[in-house]
Amino acid sequence: MITLADLPLRDDLVGAEPYGAPQLVVPVVLNVNENPYPPSATVRREMAEAVVEAAGQLNRYPEREALELRRDLANYLGHDLGPENIWVANGSNEIMSHLLTAFGGPGRRVLTFTPTYSMYPEYARNTCTEYVTAPRRADFTLDADLIVDAIEEHRPTVVLITTPNNPTGTTTSLQVIDEVCRRSDAIVVVDEAYQEFARTDSALELMTRHPRLVVSRTMSKAFALAGGRVGYLAAQPAVVDACRIVRLPYHLSAQTQAVARVALRHSDELLGRVHELAETARAFEAWLRTRGYDVVDSEANFTLFGRFADRHNVWQQLLDRGVLIRETGPDGYLRASAGTPAEMAALRDALDDISPTMLGEPTTRVDPVLQGETA
Amino acid sequence: MITLADLPLRDDLVGAEPYGAPQLVVPVVLNVNENPYPPSATVRREMAEAVVEAAGQLNRYPEREALELRRDLANYLGHDLGPENIWVANGSNEIMSHLLTAFGGPGRRVLTFTPTYSMYPEYARNTCTEYVTAPRRADFTLDADLIVDAIEEHRPTVVLITTPNNPTGTTTSLQVIDEVCRRSDAIVVVDEAYQEFARTDSALELMTRHPRLVVSRTMSKAFALAGGRVGYLAAQPAVVDACRIVRLPYHLSAQTQAVARVALRHSDELLGRVHELAETARAFEAWLRTRGYDVVDSEANFTLFGRFADRHNVWQQLLDRGVLIRETGPDGYLRASAGTPAEMAALRDALDDISPTMLGEPTTRVDPVLQGETA
Repeated sequence: MITLADLPLRDDLVGAEPYGAPQLVVPVVLNVNENPYPPSATVRREMAEAVVEAAGQLNRYPEREALELRRDLANYLGHDLGPENIWVANGSNEIMSHLLTAFGGPGRRVLTFTPTYSMYPEYARNTCTEYVTAPRRADFTLDADLIVDAIEEHRPTVVLITTPNNPTGTTTSLQVIDEVCRRSDAIVVVDEAYQEFARTDSALELMTRHPRLVVSRTMSKAFALAGGRVGYLAAQPAVVDACRIVRLPYHLSAQTQAVARVALRHSDELLGRVHELAETARAFEAWLRTRGYDVVDSEANFTLFGRFADRHNVWQQLLDRGVLIRETGPDGYLRASAGTPAEMAALRDALDDISPTMLGEPTTRVDPVLQGETA
Repeated sequence: MITLADLPLRDDLVGAEPYGAPQLVVPVVLNVNENPYPPSATVRREMAEAVVEAAGQLNRYPEREALELRRDLANYLGHDLGPENIWVANGSNEIMSHLLTAFGGPGRRVLTFTPTYSMYPEYARNTCTEYVTAPRRADFTLDADLIVDAIEEHRPTVVLITTPNNPTGTTTSLQVIDEVCRRSDAIVVVDEAYQEFARTDSALELMTRHPRLVVSRTMSKAFALAGGRVGYLAAQPAVVDACRIVRLPYHLSAQTQAVARVALRHSDELLGRVHELAETARAFEAWLRTRGYDVVDSEANFTLFGRFADRHNVWQQLLDRGVLIRETGPDGYLRASAGTPAEMAALRDALDDISPTMLGEPTTRVDPVLQGETA
């Protein structure tokens, strides 16, 4: 039997592992920041009708430009955006890949601020773009000088600013983003995967002012459509044109376009839990503080908390109690998504069952860049 | 307004255009080798039921390894293959991208034999792999010496052999592929997008003998599922592992997995037109020959024919008569897909209406590599 070592794998991929959080069958799943509420029966029926309709032409290639879906997304975002400002793909994974294929590549760099979303190095690696990072401040926030200094040091073509940041939940203000865009000519991608949960304003507000500003979004979180794999961006039409050059034709299937359009028609229902989930996370954070945990200020539907002397042990003990959360982020921390009231009660009970004897200074050093989360 | 010229587009993308055949609304569409028969009402209903079912968990990420779908595909292919031998993605576009991301990249080459499928240079470009070609023989066939000589000249890590070839319909025998695999240690990808239409054997027969042999397939053509965007490959598990390293997690949506599995359950129905469509193409070729056209021997569901002094003019005149075919392939030729009997009658009538006064030696030289077809 041939092994991977016998094949001409690209040198920088040797030893790499397929990426992703464990997909375990567990009663309480709070590990990948999913929305715990599935679409209603009404929405599911409409999705089915839309798929029957689309399937009537499934022998034909799908609409290559996905213009109707892009129009719906533009309408959802508002800010006078039109379909020419929107690009859409199979998850924000593919959106980021399109951006880095177009604006990265050999000899070019993409800059992010750690700890942050650990899929970024994968996008960079796959597109042969050098991945460079600068550390966030001790409280995980960013300021304009920190960002601009890092841009001047690394000269990236693309800068990724994640707000709310994953896995910390930390936001970056519009003032900071505005100043960075004014002081740099890099393409600034603001990843707003969790923006709907935040009380801060969207960088869409700055769109008309900064032509190199790109705002990335996903339907996986607030829209409760992780399984549907729909990510999108808003930007100047020239950025969309660049994505259109590097996208492979017909990248978005007829059924995905159909399902996403139904979800957008029902955005009131699907987004109906956003406020509740943000409140759930904030309430969990307040509870954690009463128990003596260190909690990072978050504006997302998840919470980063610790610190644990041996976080893997805590993660495992929670799993033993039927609660799956995520071992990710800076050393000593764990991340939990906001779930239903029953799921949060299970998480609190499990924590009370094992802690706070587990709190303490971590003894092992873990590289935050290598601590992965895929969602 | 900012333009693409103001953005840091990768140097080798400057001047590139988004790729793809015109998507025109025309009575008779025979330009992208689609299967003209949509799924039946029964299949569409089952697809809808599967999507309702999947949508019940659409708030959750999809099964990342798509193991059930891979098992179904293995069963469809037979040859003692299991899910560990199968990789599946959003169209063979993405399959090829995964292969070239894993085994291509900067400083490496992928070799093909022209004229051939014009998406290949796009896959190479996006993955920063050098695209090298060798010309097929005058009748568009290949032999082992031609292939091996080109491998020795270019030292590619990946060789793409397309059989039946697009846009010529030409097959390459198992004897040739067997000999190439024996005489080379490159990864040999046999692109069998149109294999179901051919009377020749599949390279799957050679799978156990050659560990670096990869067979690529699609559900877009014989399965009449172009809109569903499902491509796959069969190979040794080590090749699948390489794809798993470079795939972005959750690349295949829940609805795509659901729709594809329904299609596979109904492969009898969906593949039911394969024989008829191949016969349709062969009959059209016989008809063309009686009219004095030059026709390339094809085993696919399409026909390459000519030669026209000004093929663009012929293409336009057919379009004016409501028939869309494809301006692609070697100079002076046009390509038409096999359609329904009524569609073929319309094509024949339109050709009789304008030809054979158009036949003749082309006066312009066209680079076949640059003559695109996306399907």
